[in-house]
Amino acid sequence: MESGPKIEATLERAVDQATAPPCPPRLREAIRYALFPGGGRVRPSLCLAVATALSEVTPSLALSSAVAIELLHSASLVQDDLPCFDDASLRRGRETLHRRYDEATAILVGDAMIVLAFQTVAAHIPQSPGAAGTILAVLATAAGVPGGIAAGQAWESESCVDVSAYHHAKTAALFEAAAVAGAVSAGAASEGWRRMGGLLGQAYQIADDLADLVGEAADLGKPTQQDRLKSRPSLATDLGTGMAIERLDALVAQAIAAIPACRGRGKMEAFLSQTATRLCPPHLRRLRAEPQGVAIRT
Amino acid sequence: MESGPKIEATLERAVDQATAPPCPPRLREAIRYALFPGGGRVRPSLCLAVATALSEVTPSLALSSAVAIELLHSASLVQDDLPCFDDASLRRGRETLHRRYDEATAILVGDAMIVLAFQTVAAHIPQSPGAAGTILAVLATAAGVPGGIAAGQAWESESCVDVSAYHHAKTAALFEAAAVAGAVSAGAASEGWRRMGGLLGQAYQIADDLADLVGEAADLGKPTQQDRLKSRPSLATDLGTGMAIERLDALVAQAIAAIPACRGRGKMEAFLSQTATRLCPPHLRRLRAEPQGVAIRT
Repeated sequence: MESGPKIEATLERAVDQATAPPCPPRLREAIRYALFPGGGRVRPSLCLAVATALSEVTPSLALSSAVAIELLHSASLVQDDLPCFDDASLRRGRETLHRRYDEATAILVGDAMIVLAFQTVAAHIPQSPGAAGTILAVLATAAGVPGGIAAGQAWESESCVDVSAYHHAKTAALFEAAAVAGAVSAGAASEGWRRMGGLLGQAYQIADDLADLVGEAADLGKPTQQDRLKSRPSLATDLGTGMAIERLDALVAQAIAAIPACRGRGKMEAFLSQTATRLCPPHLRRLRAEPQGVAIRT
Repeated sequence: MESGPKIEATLERAVDQATAPPCPPRLREAIRYALFPGGGRVRPSLCLAVATALSEVTPSLALSSAVAIELLHSASLVQDDLPCFDDASLRRGRETLHRRYDEATAILVGDAMIVLAFQTVAAHIPQSPGAAGTILAVLATAAGVPGGIAAGQAWESESCVDVSAYHHAKTAALFEAAAVAGAVSAGAASEGWRRMGGLLGQAYQIADDLADLVGEAADLGKPTQQDRLKSRPSLATDLGTGMAIERLDALVAQAIAAIPACRGRGKMEAFLSQTATRLCPPHLRRLRAEPQGVAIRT
């Protein structure tokens, strides 16, 4: 089975179990709304790509880690859309969760998904205490404080922003965690994979800033120009689109060069290249050569 | 050292570590605002009371579990106060967190505390994989879906409320978890302690409903009459104050009778009795004999 259907099936199972009775029915529906249909599932796919580059059989702990990472990411999206954050009306081409349901439900969906992320990995402690324990610590680092997603979102409320800490916490931390969890669940050392994941995370951040600056809301399924409207740091604005695309390409090349020794190096390279193409599709890439790419900078 | 100072010291250490640089400074301050000075610390005290009734030395896992339980409880209070839930302005006699900071910060403080709760217990996996794994599962059950705090709060948004599931999820589940975590960290079987914790949790729910119905905002440090204003189920309203106090006393007596065999039975009994006195202080208890106690029912 390809990694995409495996991720969906494992996520379905985890959510079914967590939202069985006595779960309040509206909350169950809202949790499903947050998760299905999903977005690109980039982070869980990264986790599985690393695990299968190292191990012939996909470890069940890698699947649970992938699901946990998607749950943490989805929780952050639901929160990001709330009126007190981005006040967004559209996500993945349809109403944001708090518009479809209400703010209280959106906050509780976030809580429930964060808890379920840890619960899903903790279920592996009896079989794999060492690896599951390491992955739980890695997930907590990527999701909480001092340097995870909660910290990343909080930098947007600070009067003086540490831009590098902001970008690392908001995006790269979970990419690092995805790569590390994949490696640890396959019994491998994690440091090289952390570096590779972090580089892909930095590339993703640039792609996200580019999409916000020059993408089309209809293609993205969400509003654009949010960084400018909310005065948030944007590498695409700082560098200009042309240089931003060059930086993105350089980061992907560095990520490929950083792949640690493994049995599936070719497949891992292919995964990173395909991800880069998805992150920066041809119509964005054309801007690199065109002067208006830079003009958009202002 | 008494359990109170031990809880404060362990909580301080966990929070210091989690909010060290690069934590955004305003988020660090807000997390501390949510936790210090604390409220009654009833749940972590229950966890430690159970552990010390079973073990001469307080297990460090019991201390971490107690802190995790307080973190989950505090996260639920910060959220409960938000405009989309209770819209409360006062908590523990001062501004609620979102009034002092802002809504975004309050939501992120909640996330950070939930993550830190799991991180604190997961740190014990290398030394005590079995017990830490069980406690992580217990915490997730008490905090998430289908029957933990997130589910409990969500019942308030449902058109048709399962009152028993609501009360269990919103209050009793975390009391059960506190008692079970205390027992498991001391290496004991958990079922009897779960029952005892659940009975104390039910007593606490009645005390909370009573305080809301007939207490004084100045004594409680928060607004009263919220159940009536928000049309929420209230056992104090349903039973009348006199019968509610009788039910509370009966539940505490049942909890005392349910204490499983242990070396510190006397101390455990004393803890439950003292907690009951704190939950239902003499000025509330006087209402039991007075007809106006029942008159408040309408």
